[in-house]
Amino acid sequence: MSVYEKALELHESRRGKIEVVSKVKVTNREELSLAYSPGVAEPCRRIAENKNDVYRYTSKGNLVAVVTDGSAVLGLGNIGPEAALPVMEGKAILFKEFAGVDAIPICLDTQDVDEIVKTCKLLAPGLGGINLEDISAPRCVEIETRLKEELDIPVFHDDQHGTAIVVTAGLINAYKLMERDLKDAKVVVCGAGAAGSSIIKMVRDLGVKDIVALDIHGIISRGDESREYDPLTKELSEITNTDNITGGLAEAVRGTDIFIGVSAGGILKKEMVETMNKDAVIFAMANPTPEIMPEEALEAGARIVGTGRSDYPNQVNNVLAFPGLFKGALEVGATKITEEMKMAAAKGIASVVEGELRDDYILPDAFDERVARVVADSVKKIAVEKNLIRK
Amino acid sequence: MSVYEKALELHESRRGKIEVVSKVKVTNREELSLAYSPGVAEPCRRIAENKNDVYRYTSKGNLVAVVTDGSAVLGLGNIGPEAALPVMEGKAILFKEFAGVDAIPICLDTQDVDEIVKTCKLLAPGLGGINLEDISAPRCVEIETRLKEELDIPVFHDDQHGTAIVVTAGLINAYKLMERDLKDAKVVVCGAGAAGSSIIKMVRDLGVKDIVALDIHGIISRGDESREYDPLTKELSEITNTDNITGGLAEAVRGTDIFIGVSAGGILKKEMVETMNKDAVIFAMANPTPEIMPEEALEAGARIVGTGRSDYPNQVNNVLAFPGLFKGALEVGATKITEEMKMAAAKGIASVVEGELRDDYILPDAFDERVARVVADSVKKIAVEKNLIRK
Repeated sequence: MSVYEKALELHESRRGKIEVVSKVKVTNREELSLAYSPGVAEPCRRIAENKNDVYRYTSKGNLVAVVTDGSAVLGLGNIGPEAALPVMEGKAILFKEFAGVDAIPICLDTQDVDEIVKTCKLLAPGLGGINLEDISAPRCVEIETRLKEELDIPVFHDDQHGTAIVVTAGLINAYKLMERDLKDAKVVVCGAGAAGSSIIKMVRDLGVKDIVALDIHGIISRGDESREYDPLTKELSEITNTDNITGGLAEAVRGTDIFIGVSAGGILKKEMVETMNKDAVIFAMANPTPEIMPEEALEAGARIVGTGRSDYPNQVNNVLAFPGLFKGALEVGATKITEEMKMAAAKGIASVVEGELRDDYILPDAFDERVARVVADSVKKIAVEKNLIRK
Repeated sequence: MSVYEKALELHESRRGKIEVVSKVKVTNREELSLAYSPGVAEPCRRIAENKNDVYRYTSKGNLVAVVTDGSAVLGLGNIGPEAALPVMEGKAILFKEFAGVDAIPICLDTQDVDEIVKTCKLLAPGLGGINLEDISAPRCVEIETRLKEELDIPVFHDDQHGTAIVVTAGLINAYKLMERDLKDAKVVVCGAGAAGSSIIKMVRDLGVKDIVALDIHGIISRGDESREYDPLTKELSEITNTDNITGGLAEAVRGTDIFIGVSAGGILKKEMVETMNKDAVIFAMANPTPEIMPEEALEAGARIVGTGRSDYPNQVNNVLAFPGLFKGALEVGATKITEEMKMAAAKGIASVVEGELRDDYILPDAFDERVARVVADSVKKIAVEKNLIRK
């Protein structure tokens, strides 16, 4: 049986992957009177007097909603909220299994930005945080930006930032291993959607100055009259490509040190890698087929290669980031997830394996149990330092 | 320690009452590849092809949202969505513990009818049903009515119908025990809000013709120019009080057989009960203090007395109704919860103890494990008979 047949059987036999269980016993009258009426009136009264006590007496403080509109699910595209549910349930169980965070899937029957923002705000009283998931660009950027401004609970779009955090961790360790300085690195980012733009911003925050970005039309540059840039692409054109070069992927990668792909399978050719600088680092994260297969990249002279796949070394897996990130934010009572917290998470992930680095081991394994705790603590430290904690 | 102090301690020590757990293991790469990427793509694809398969491969079919706006929480009133959360979590765990139904609390930051309806509709793709809770009248009636019309999943407002179902079960058994016919009963319903109006409708469906209803201003009648009736009260004025009597509670109860109170503690006096007919039945369900204490009612000549309290016999506890009702509706794939299903649930509850009836045992104990299964099967039978099942 293929992984797909097995997965189908698993999902059908359990009728989904999540269940909601009680943390308290309700097996007799006394227990019922404490968990429910009349005793439950007391925590209600306390919270009515002091709204912040909702974190003290309810599950809110450890509960994340995994919110989607089903518009950009895995590589499957705009398949709608019902078809997105298996992924959201999957995400919910990863929150619990990897970090002890409770999560509920919320699949919205709308793809209207205002309605999604409004609904998230209406749901917020019962939520400790919101993880946006599989919402297509550029809408996802606007939704996240508005929710961050308007809510006082952590909001995070994993498709944008999850990969960016893990790639950043990988770059830190790759350059540490090679004893090189990222400030001197020339970087190509192929794919300028939600994930690509977040990667570009984090790579800049690492001190990298020379970044060239590509979208499906080629290198993003300023003054290109041949096409119209959406706001996201326009912003990227202003913060990348200082030499304002033009062309396609072949032109972009020549003479560079790092290739980061969040684009399409097989588009990075061996001949292109051969034109990169010595000891090139390649993160080819298109799924399920990477921009270049690791063996090809290595044959072409690359030194360190990572993909999104679990069957190759250096897997860039979001599960290294989001569970610990939310765990830390929720534990400390953070009101936001900031750029600094994301960078702290990346450095935390990197730190877990910094004493064990090899070319084929620059990132912790997805099941490395140290990671969530380290990431959570890294995030908490920033929240405290920057006083981003609810009163 | 009082029940309130103990309840507070319980809620604080566990930080709430619910948690979301995985039904599948995710402890290694293979398990991860089935529960999440890449395997999860297969159930997504199937559901994208056939939306109904969402019931086959996800938790939707067993998941109920417990939705409130915090406007009428227990007897505490309009305390807002945060303060309502302990009750919603309590309800969620009762769903699970009593019927194996998964439930998530949804506390909305709005009390606008349109926004509540809209939000429930947007959330529906991931939900098997909606249990409305602690929403004030008459808004709750409009919200439920609109959602029933516009959604194809079961929607049920427990505050309206839960008590009505259990009272109906109690009346059936009380009259069976006394070998009397409910068609001849004269009934007073004190309290004409959400619960009272649903009780009146179910009592009529039992064949009772003589019903007098009271609200806070007294007996509800037709042609009363002294005050304006809201739409709910106006409707009740048209279906009750055939003799169009006027006055207060004392006038209402004289010469009647059954008193049903969902109003305020202590308002039914011994002297009033003494004016009722022989073998009177009294359901005094104001919480925590009933309209009349059971010992007083019995001293005044009543024969069968029920309250909302667990420390007296014949407890009218909603937990006898809603878990099994939703369990049945979800198991059979019902698209609605109808009046007939509610009546079937009442008869199901009554049937559980019909061979064991005594004056002080006309309703099953809240923890009677037979109830949820019997109620579920009764509801399923109607859904099948009336073809109210999704295709």
